[in-house]
Amino acid sequence: MKTAIEPTREENYPEWFQAVIRAADVAEHSPVRGCMVIKPWGYAIWENMQRILDRMFKETGHQNAYFPLFIPLSFLQKEASHVEGFAKECAVVTHHRLEMDKEGKLVPAGELEEPLIVRPTSETIIGASFSKWITSYRDLPLLINQWANVVRWEMRTRMFLRTTEFLWQEGHTAHATQEEAEEETMRMLGVYQYFVEKCLAIPVIRGMKTPSEKFPGAENTYTIETMTQDRKALQGGTSHFLGQHFAKASEIKFRDVDGEERHAWTTSWGMTTRLIGALIMAHSDDDGLILPPRVASAHLVIIPVIHKEETKAEVLAYCHGLAGILRHIQYHGHPLTVIIDEREMRGGDKVWSWIKRGVPLRVEVGPRDIAADQLPVTRRDRGHKDSVRQSRDQLITTILVQLEEIQENLFQKALAFRDSHIHKIDSKEAFYAFFTPKNSENPEIHGGFALTHWSGDPEIEEQLKKDLGVTIRCIPLDLPKEEGICPFTGKKSTQRVIYAKAY
Amino acid sequence: MKTAIEPTREENYPEWFQAVIRAADVAEHSPVRGCMVIKPWGYAIWENMQRILDRMFKETGHQNAYFPLFIPLSFLQKEASHVEGFAKECAVVTHHRLEMDKEGKLVPAGELEEPLIVRPTSETIIGASFSKWITSYRDLPLLINQWANVVRWEMRTRMFLRTTEFLWQEGHTAHATQEEAEEETMRMLGVYQYFVEKCLAIPVIRGMKTPSEKFPGAENTYTIETMTQDRKALQGGTSHFLGQHFAKASEIKFRDVDGEERHAWTTSWGMTTRLIGALIMAHSDDDGLILPPRVASAHLVIIPVIHKEETKAEVLAYCHGLAGILRHIQYHGHPLTVIIDEREMRGGDKVWSWIKRGVPLRVEVGPRDIAADQLPVTRRDRGHKDSVRQSRDQLITTILVQLEEIQENLFQKALAFRDSHIHKIDSKEAFYAFFTPKNSENPEIHGGFALTHWSGDPEIEEQLKKDLGVTIRCIPLDLPKEEGICPFTGKKSTQRVIYAKAY
Repeated sequence: MKTAIEPTREENYPEWFQAVIRAADVAEHSPVRGCMVIKPWGYAIWENMQRILDRMFKETGHQNAYFPLFIPLSFLQKEASHVEGFAKECAVVTHHRLEMDKEGKLVPAGELEEPLIVRPTSETIIGASFSKWITSYRDLPLLINQWANVVRWEMRTRMFLRTTEFLWQEGHTAHATQEEAEEETMRMLGVYQYFVEKCLAIPVIRGMKTPSEKFPGAENTYTIETMTQDRKALQGGTSHFLGQHFAKASEIKFRDVDGEERHAWTTSWGMTTRLIGALIMAHSDDDGLILPPRVASAHLVIIPVIHKEETKAEVLAYCHGLAGILRHIQYHGHPLTVIIDEREMRGGDKVWSWIKRGVPLRVEVGPRDIAADQLPVTRRDRGHKDSVRQSRDQLITTILVQLEEIQENLFQKALAFRDSHIHKIDSKEAFYAFFTPKNSENPEIHGGFALTHWSGDPEIEEQLKKDLGVTIRCIPLDLPKEEGICPFTGKKSTQRVIYAKAY
Repeated sequence: MKTAIEPTREENYPEWFQAVIRAADVAEHSPVRGCMVIKPWGYAIWENMQRILDRMFKETGHQNAYFPLFIPLSFLQKEASHVEGFAKECAVVTHHRLEMDKEGKLVPAGELEEPLIVRPTSETIIGASFSKWITSYRDLPLLINQWANVVRWEMRTRMFLRTTEFLWQEGHTAHATQEEAEEETMRMLGVYQYFVEKCLAIPVIRGMKTPSEKFPGAENTYTIETMTQDRKALQGGTSHFLGQHFAKASEIKFRDVDGEERHAWTTSWGMTTRLIGALIMAHSDDDGLILPPRVASAHLVIIPVIHKEETKAEVLAYCHGLAGILRHIQYHGHPLTVIIDEREMRGGDKVWSWIKRGVPLRVEVGPRDIAADQLPVTRRDRGHKDSVRQSRDQLITTILVQLEEIQENLFQKALAFRDSHIHKIDSKEAFYAFFTPKNSENPEIHGGFALTHWSGDPEIEEQLKKDLGVTIRCIPLDLPKEEGICPFTGKKSTQRVIYAKAY
């Protein structure tokens, strides 16, 4: 059977991913190395994500602010492991104007005394403000969020998942005690889990990163890990307990209730446009994108079916009337987005363009459907021909239920897929076999997530990364403690961890 | 009489402006040259501005998208006058990592083959996408907006008004005909005028820029000019008709209805965080910020007045009850923002902190006010002691009217101020006297806007800029044509223009 996307997931997963992005008109490569253009259809997903997250941040007491794009080199150096983590991948501004050289070529001029780094993250520059804003325990907790662009000069880039520039939010908070900062770290991890599971319909595993995978400068990094359809792990968001590392680096101090001066305890947490990549990887099929209704660029597309010129006015009037009513219905606090496709093109092409773009519901409206008051409604998460005839009134009164069913169905599908590809593995042989591609034609398809004991050795992490390209994605928080033995070292272990290949 | 802000506007206007920003907790200088930190109270104004503008853009058919932060040097060069306009003030990225030199100092490494410019504006990088997105007349008009940060390396910076990095929106559109592009240019100027007058409560003069003041690469630049309280002009937003300049530079071509290939006609238009500066300059007084309700960070502050511990519970319960009801009232489609100030500090300090921050309405609630059902409500646009006693029910039922009255009063005040400082001037002597400071102590205070005839000579613009620091702010669109004579050249003129000192 011919599919709208070529190659299919089975044939070549990475190319399928790029093809879906192209076919759904979500983004494109830009002329700037590693940077992408987020097209309107893709940006609308981001706007929905922003709106939901922003509200959750405010409901948990955070305020937005904005800090400089540039970080002086000396600031980045304030925290040793932090600068080590980012030095290899940062864009450096060294000049502040252009001038003509003798050959008439425009060249950088006006060299800066101190180079500026385009922010890869903002702990150090925000820390400089926090140190001014905080003087007393009364100023705590300080709960700030920033929506911004950041730049990390990655060598190998991939649309949405790893781009030189990306959009994100970064939360930065300061607290009087370790306990409160740890609570905040977990609270925001919870917000992220809720958002990814309930809004993006992607199941996650909450866990802690191993020391070798944590954020440069963090005491602990917590993560939510998702599974893609090629059974790799994709990190969906991270929340860092920073201890007093950055408070000491930036001199964030406060006079406590007892009159003593103490360093604050800080956290940071972030989510990025990479989640759009996670969403595409989790739900799309060989015919293109499938959008979860909660963040969909549009909820319903109405396609007028006009074979004869004399029925055109009637059909269009009907479609506009229907759209007008549906646009007054609120879905999770916002009006439904309804598109009427009046483009002059073949009906089949129209239908397929919306299938590829992933609109959750589609209804085709012709004179006979109107006359019979039976409109064929098709769900994007079902077969393209599995339309269900509904009266106009039925559609209007049940559209929210239908959208919620699609949302839940996408989640359950992704959950079943993920759970069927998580396996407890207790021997080295089984582990190596699990991560060896099943099919030489498509090296991406391997076993999935391995739940395997780990005794805490960083050497094992290095070895498996080298041998198989497999890393520990996290030490799951919601898994019962269990005595066991690391299959690679024979050492005792108290818990299984998630091993996987990762994006 | 002592004022909360020192110096006063009369004493030293530029320092007063900085002092208001500090006292209102709106923003602060950052350690990065010319960049500022927008603090939560200031960022909330920007969020309100964004929300209103974004909705107006969407209602006029525009879609948001996102394009790269970096522009390859060769792209900037595609339009000759464009690169000339921005070459002197752009941040240049030349390296993509840091490494240790022999002395253990971290230095830029990994030099880029082609330098990247941090976008000062995005015509050229967006043009690259438009040239791919547009092939047929069916693809037009293409109506795109981007919310982004931009960088212009200004030599003299001033908070909000001129910062190295600033936040803005930039609209970019492409059209099949010159008429449509010109219509779009004027439509968006109209949106800007509406927004600044109705939401920021600042009266504007719509006009066209002279060739020497237009956007680098534009055919025509339209502007809305506002007046600050030191009688200077502050540009509130610009809308550019770009002709086919950028379409030719970026090869934005389409096949027209008649089968001919043609270049598109493009526009761009932008508004920035500088408008927060305009708002502060237009409405604040010697006691601090005054926020127009439509974009206020908060609408009402409730200050519980508790002199005895035993009344505390009752007073707080009352305040929370009142806030709970008010927060359910929608003001222009969004819930009212109500603050209860429960900080442990002196009542007078509390009151003054909210006066300085510019909250439109303040109510102080003590046990006797509750018992009498007479709450003292104070408007920020009136005297600080001019409170009006209102019953709880009165406050609840009239709060929207009170906010709208404040909004309108601020506009009328600013309008009267502006109009009293616009003068028709027809002789060179009067012109020079008009722009000569009245008071050597405060060189900022001069006449205001001069409505004077201009025959089109760029030499006169240069001369007046040199002599007086005065430029033509715009050729007003809404002024009747009038025959006259340029007082500097004696040449015939068909219209008066606005001459002013400007920010």
